[in-house]
Amino acid sequence: MRTPTKKDIEQAFETVSKYAHRTPVLTSKSINSMLGCSVFFKCENFQKVGAFKFRGAANAVFSLSNGQSAKGVCTHSSGNHAAALAVAAAIRGIPSYIVMPSNAPAIKRKAVEGYGAKIFTCEPTQDAREKELERVRIETGSTFIHPYENFEVICGQGTASLELLDEVKGLQTVITPVGGGGLFSGTLIYTKETNPSIEVYAGEPQNADDAYRSLRDGTLHPSINPNTIADGLRTSLCPLTLSIIQKYADGILTVSEESIVKAMRLVWERMKIVIEPSSAVPVAAIMQNREVFKGKRVGVIISGGNVDVKNLPF
Amino acid sequence: MRTPTKKDIEQAFETVSKYAHRTPVLTSKSINSMLGCSVFFKCENFQKVGAFKFRGAANAVFSLSNGQSAKGVCTHSSGNHAAALAVAAAIRGIPSYIVMPSNAPAIKRKAVEGYGAKIFTCEPTQDAREKELERVRIETGSTFIHPYENFEVICGQGTASLELLDEVKGLQTVITPVGGGGLFSGTLIYTKETNPSIEVYAGEPQNADDAYRSLRDGTLHPSINPNTIADGLRTSLCPLTLSIIQKYADGILTVSEESIVKAMRLVWERMKIVIEPSSAVPVAAIMQNREVFKGKRVGVIISGGNVDVKNLPF
Repeated sequence: MRTPTKKDIEQAFETVSKYAHRTPVLTSKSINSMLGCSVFFKCENFQKVGAFKFRGAANAVFSLSNGQSAKGVCTHSSGNHAAALAVAAAIRGIPSYIVMPSNAPAIKRKAVEGYGAKIFTCEPTQDAREKELERVRIETGSTFIHPYENFEVICGQGTASLELLDEVKGLQTVITPVGGGGLFSGTLIYTKETNPSIEVYAGEPQNADDAYRSLRDGTLHPSINPNTIADGLRTSLCPLTLSIIQKYADGILTVSEESIVKAMRLVWERMKIVIEPSSAVPVAAIMQNREVFKGKRVGVIISGGNVDVKNLPF
Repeated sequence: MRTPTKKDIEQAFETVSKYAHRTPVLTSKSINSMLGCSVFFKCENFQKVGAFKFRGAANAVFSLSNGQSAKGVCTHSSGNHAAALAVAAAIRGIPSYIVMPSNAPAIKRKAVEGYGAKIFTCEPTQDAREKELERVRIETGSTFIHPYENFEVICGQGTASLELLDEVKGLQTVITPVGGGGLFSGTLIYTKETNPSIEVYAGEPQNADDAYRSLRDGTLHPSINPNTIADGLRTSLCPLTLSIIQKYADGILTVSEESIVKAMRLVWERMKIVIEPSSAVPVAAIMQNREVFKGKRVGVIISGGNVDVKNLPF
């Protein structure tokens, strides 16, 4: 798979901007004074389906030829990528097929069904997911859209940083969460190829620190059943995202579960916005590494806002 | 006290806009399709101190002469008005004195202290509050800024609807919550004197329906210790706000406690914004009176976002 460039992300923006919201950038004086830097929050929690994932899914779906697209798209996911792909497919008017583990929350299943996807249930193992996906893909003739090991998806995710850099001048640092690395990769490419002097970091839960270890050792270390509240970051890097991170990243900052909850609550209380635990991870990273960000203009990509408000960690 | 006019609100805007945020107007397709109308949320939960109250407080504080202001301002409140007055006074560099009942939550007390106010504690009765306030006012020589029975405060609150009507063209209906009536009065004056064909409603908890009963009977009926989750709406109208409501209001729609919680959760989950129960009241009123709003362009003023995230009703 070819590595995307800034130009590819600009091209993706032509597509994505037709379907995605241009999300607002919010700031808070009280958060700035608490964190000791000027933070600009790019609010992808306000994006369609409540997460940046819609950007990548929309770019992937609308990059398909008419012939390819007619048979639809498929993926395995119980999270934001499934919802994003279902909505993007519905907008293009093509079918979507989602493989979900049998232990996926009923509420997520219902949401994805509500977006018009056809759901296939499998045993909750990686092996069962992949086998069922392959069966569905062959049976339907649909195109598999991987949540991050996909050229168009990475380009789509990069468009959030394109909008951020366009709107906020003089950023010195950008930080995103990292799970599979799609958002982090897209952000790295766009930001570093625009201005290499901007530092780009990711925040990652200590309890799911595969990206941190993979970058440190220069080889892929998958996370095995990581136990973190940041449910969007339990996935592991793939060869493509690792290679982009190796090329461009200034570092991956790992954070404790306790600091994730603390950061999440800080943003809810001070910014008055609903963010999911994964989105609190970069904020926790700033809290735990003040010297890195001190006095700087820092862009934070808030990845999403899909959280069960009946079951909060505070 | 003279009744404010649209012109007074426009003049207040000259002052308020120097200190307050111009808050965003947000929309959600899924909420529109659920409610059967096009709703434009004016997000005062993103205002300074997390509530529209900053507008009125800022206008009142900056309308004082230099001589008057030097001795500071005072009020009795344990809620958003206390915080708003403290911040506005701090910006002008004058002292603020807040009388709070001894049972006010420690967290609110701390917040107001953090803004630089001097706090006086009294027994938790209306009589004790008023006596202590009078004592403090005389002792300090400060000016009492009532939370809504105040010309400048009502003008300041009206600036939220000025910004809303400026930003969203073709609104057919506007709805706010009503407690003491400051926000509702300011909104009525600005909206009706701009375009009398725009319908203006308030939502009010059934359990604190003094405004509903006062409007119906044409006389002030105070709420006595009302029991509602919408803690910002437990106050009662005053003669000035009742007279404005009688002149202009198209109606007051009362809602159940259950529907307030349901509406609050809907906004959190779909809009990804943190709103306090009082702000959910107009949304509940739309849910419970669909025929009134059906197919219309409806402006909703989201009054604030100060809520204890550790103690949620869902």
